[in-house]
Amino acid sequence: MKIELGNKNCLYPMPTTLVGVNVDGKANFITIAHVGIMGMKIISVCLNKEHYSNAGIIENKTFSVNMPSIRMVKEIDYCGLVSGKNVNKAALFDVFYGKVKTAPMIESCPINMECMLVKKIDFTSHEIFIGEIVETYCDDDVVTNGKVDVSKVNPILFVMNDKGYWKLGKRFADAWNVGKDLVEDKS
Amino acid sequence: MKIELGNKNCLYPMPTTLVGVNVDGKANFITIAHVGIMGMKIISVCLNKEHYSNAGIIENKTFSVNMPSIRMVKEIDYCGLVSGKNVNKAALFDVFYGKVKTAPMIESCPINMECMLVKKIDFTSHEIFIGEIVETYCDDDVVTNGKVDVSKVNPILFVMNDKGYWKLGKRFADAWNVGKDLVEDKS
Repeated sequence: MKIELGNKNCLYPMPTTLVGVNVDGKANFITIAHVGIMGMKIISVCLNKEHYSNAGIIENKTFSVNMPSIRMVKEIDYCGLVSGKNVNKAALFDVFYGKVKTAPMIESCPINMECMLVKKIDFTSHEIFIGEIVETYCDDDVVTNGKVDVSKVNPILFVMNDKGYWKLGKRFADAWNVGKDLVEDKS
Repeated sequence: MKIELGNKNCLYPMPTTLVGVNVDGKANFITIAHVGIMGMKIISVCLNKEHYSNAGIIENKTFSVNMPSIRMVKEIDYCGLVSGKNVNKAALFDVFYGKVKTAPMIESCPINMECMLVKKIDFTSHEIFIGEIVETYCDDDVVTNGKVDVSKVNPILFVMNDKGYWKLGKRFADAWNVGKDLVEDKS
């Protein structure tokens, strides 16, 4: 039986990220799981307008999206609890820069994507920053047979409904393949 | 050691959804995992411009986002392999409508969100449809203590890099809580 929940967002889990921004020339990181994919090379991050990082993205037109592993759960939660207005969160991490000179990245995150801002969308309380990926870096130990192995990345998945961090489970099927039986049945 | 991967999108896994649209007055469903969250009640779906569904979203200004369980993996893969131009994919499912009269939803998906289109973004090859959630429906058997239990939803997570469907693992920490030790350490 179906139950009505009101206008509740249940589009979870989402990957938890650390968004890196230079603000006044200094690296800052904010934990964001309200992210999206808008094309093969285009991703979005959703920031409340009250956050310290927004001005830095607007100023530099760059940001990074870093994918932490579950071993970093305390650090990523901390980066969502405190503001760069008051605390130097970058002190927690070894920070590096890539091709885009103003998008700080975190060495200990197995995946780092540096982005150029291509569009900003304004909602009442939030700004959506849409970035085109310029370069992606990964740790050599998360690669299997030349490809990024998401089980080695071991990302932190976020669910709003229970305010929980979840692990990734097992791979169980091949996309663009497991449904081929049905194509044949119906042709 | 860091390796450069080029401008590779590694923002995975993402939840796999079936997007429901009326096209020429008939229900159609398309498998989309390139989705996003843009606010507490605002979500996005990214569709290649060549898809059959886009015209229906533009015409009706409505669509639904249905979250399938892993038991539906063959059906969701099929709905990504074939086009509504050629096949009546809605015949696979029991379809229902809610408050928004033109957003078809799938009974067998444990979560259904009906959306009003609030914005469309045009990229070269893709259109991003941004919807405000009007009403969310869930199966009564995925609720634990009055809340949607994502482990009972058992969503299908998509990873592009290995073209794989993955399961959700275990909940392992509380958000806005597990990092509090660090706040205290540093205050």
